[in-house]
Amino acid sequence: MRLGIIGLGTVGEGVLEILSTEENNFKNKGIDLEVLYACDINLDRGFSFEFDKSILTKDFNDILNDEKVDTVVELIGGETIAKHIIVEAIKKGKNVITANKALLAKHAKEIFSLAKEKQVNIFYEASVGGGIPIISPLQESLIANNILGIRGIINGTANYILSEMKEKNLDFDTVLKDAMKKGYAEADPTYDIEGIDTAHKICVLASLAFNSYIDFDKVIISGISKIDSIDIQIAEKLGYNIKLIASAKYLGEKLAVEVAPTLLSNKELLANVDNVFNAIEVESDYAGTSLFYGRGAGKDATASAVVADIVKASKESPFRERYYFNLEDEADLINENQLIGTYYLRIETSDFKEEIRDLSFKVFEEDKYTILITNKIKRADLMAYLENKNYTLLNVN
Amino acid sequence: MRLGIIGLGTVGEGVLEILSTEENNFKNKGIDLEVLYACDINLDRGFSFEFDKSILTKDFNDILNDEKVDTVVELIGGETIAKHIIVEAIKKGKNVITANKALLAKHAKEIFSLAKEKQVNIFYEASVGGGIPIISPLQESLIANNILGIRGIINGTANYILSEMKEKNLDFDTVLKDAMKKGYAEADPTYDIEGIDTAHKICVLASLAFNSYIDFDKVIISGISKIDSIDIQIAEKLGYNIKLIASAKYLGEKLAVEVAPTLLSNKELLANVDNVFNAIEVESDYAGTSLFYGRGAGKDATASAVVADIVKASKESPFRERYYFNLEDEADLINENQLIGTYYLRIETSDFKEEIRDLSFKVFEEDKYTILITNKIKRADLMAYLENKNYTLLNVN
Repeated sequence: MRLGIIGLGTVGEGVLEILSTEENNFKNKGIDLEVLYACDINLDRGFSFEFDKSILTKDFNDILNDEKVDTVVELIGGETIAKHIIVEAIKKGKNVITANKALLAKHAKEIFSLAKEKQVNIFYEASVGGGIPIISPLQESLIANNILGIRGIINGTANYILSEMKEKNLDFDTVLKDAMKKGYAEADPTYDIEGIDTAHKICVLASLAFNSYIDFDKVIISGISKIDSIDIQIAEKLGYNIKLIASAKYLGEKLAVEVAPTLLSNKELLANVDNVFNAIEVESDYAGTSLFYGRGAGKDATASAVVADIVKASKESPFRERYYFNLEDEADLINENQLIGTYYLRIETSDFKEEIRDLSFKVFEEDKYTILITNKIKRADLMAYLENKNYTLLNVN
Repeated sequence: MRLGIIGLGTVGEGVLEILSTEENNFKNKGIDLEVLYACDINLDRGFSFEFDKSILTKDFNDILNDEKVDTVVELIGGETIAKHIIVEAIKKGKNVITANKALLAKHAKEIFSLAKEKQVNIFYEASVGGGIPIISPLQESLIANNILGIRGIINGTANYILSEMKEKNLDFDTVLKDAMKKGYAEADPTYDIEGIDTAHKICVLASLAFNSYIDFDKVIISGISKIDSIDIQIAEKLGYNIKLIASAKYLGEKLAVEVAPTLLSNKELLANVDNVFNAIEVESDYAGTSLFYGRGAGKDATASAVVADIVKASKESPFRERYYFNLEDEADLINENQLIGTYYLRIETSDFKEEIRDLSFKVFEEDKYTILITNKIKRADLMAYLENKNYTLLNVN
């Protein structure tokens, strides 16, 4: 197997480091691979590990055009150049390994159709949950099962912020600034805090779990930026932790795919997944409840997942369509107005309407706010009272 | 792929049920397999699902002698007939799928050497952790990593007993009797409560994690039968839960493979794995901490893992030695006298010797007992004071 790695950012450098440092280890395990190219636009820098510098190139076309390269590892991210590279690699009959959840969530049709036509493999274990094996369990270990539901904490930045807000009793903005300083949040943190990255990832997981095409535009998304430390304290008093939960489950005939900050009973394992850690819980008909926990991001953990895919690709030369998303059967997704659930609502007491009380089993005042935990209701019935009001609405699981 | 299933006990029947019920599902997923035989000595009974009864046989030789059978699923358990069947299947060039941890722990050399000679595959995902994918993550998903340590709750019966003792404040014997009545413990529960089954399983996990041969006879084993409800209460007061923990980790140059009831901080996820659930935590150099949680036993969950192996075998017809244990490099295992750790000791106050106080950072009296939490010490140094005494000694993690 002859590789070209494109993108030497955090993860790409991690992959090159593992492949260089563990070369003998891999040979002993009977794994035969060679990195022919490592490509990045920024090569004027040092590397903290030893490798043959002659593999470095600034031009990804060196990799795409070299017939000796049979597998392209795309670690640039984003939907522009990364997409071009993946599409061209597939056209040239090269297998693709990627961590690019945005691309998989939004351009699955184009990529997998082309891959099928060209009979190449696409591997993407690193796209969700960093170092946590979750793609391969869904594709293989749980194959006997019909998946009933999936819930996860799959964005390390959001989970770090919520954990710090609780642990240190700080407000959202303070923690976000601190997270940016520490490198746990990006300069533009929108994707992480507004649930977009989480939505990309649940789209990948739900596609596999429910073996159907999930239209990313129909995923229901809300982020954590409206959560105040008062919400976290109230939740704690009631025996809950607040987590940004991605979920996919059937509500009647339709599938609900949703990202929402959620109150989880602190007795649940998932509620106790803190800081940058991720966890994904899968409910299936034979295996029952399974949970996969680990480092959801970071150089080494994500690189570990990419390398697992590289090894898999090296062993699995035959074309395996079973690793694709199913594009033929589109899932019938619920929209926001059809959602049914239990909700936590915080609203200024001056804005509170008595009618909402009838929808709730717990209503109390705290400071200038009225807080409600609703019965199981249609979300739309609640929203009817909230038009033009200032409120914070969270799921309760 | 043409299968013969041998042993229609709980798990075997579950496998046959999944393969029969989900036949169309599997065909849609491109999985092509046929059950040619299902064998059990007891066939005078009903089955709760539909299947072609002509596959039933009482004679496993029908399966071994039929050249059309390429894969034998051994689900009898034990080390006598099961071993004979596996050895004969391998000799005839058939792949083997098994959940038999005792056999893997104690007869790995014979089985894997023969399998290598005959170039057949052995799959055993169901041998540890029931429905939890753990063998395949160790063999594949974490392949980039050097494993630093592994800890797990891998016996559902023992975990159920400890959970019930805590939850309902009952003593060991009462809960054990109740567990037997409910079918959570076998008529002879020795293997489960004395840690033998757990030892078989950690032997399998450690063989893979540390890529070396583990001599089962050197695994250090203690069970849960000496734990009193007073221990559970004291542990709780100190912020710990008691769990039967299987572990394998380096202590200096040597590997410590141990099964012991252990006090775990109740802030740890592992400490909150209750009832019949299992969990395995893996510490590795790149992926960091990973944890795999789920149903560790039971018909459907274990059958789910067996079926995953069946599907894997059907896709992986080429010979894959990488699924074997490494028999060449024997791990240098620590013995009991070399163990270093932190311990919980409960001893009758009349038997307590002042010298032990110097080894401990916490000493207090409760009822007629003296309880100590030691510093990190050589276990042998503590044992020197305990000769001929009546005591309960647990690990502290």
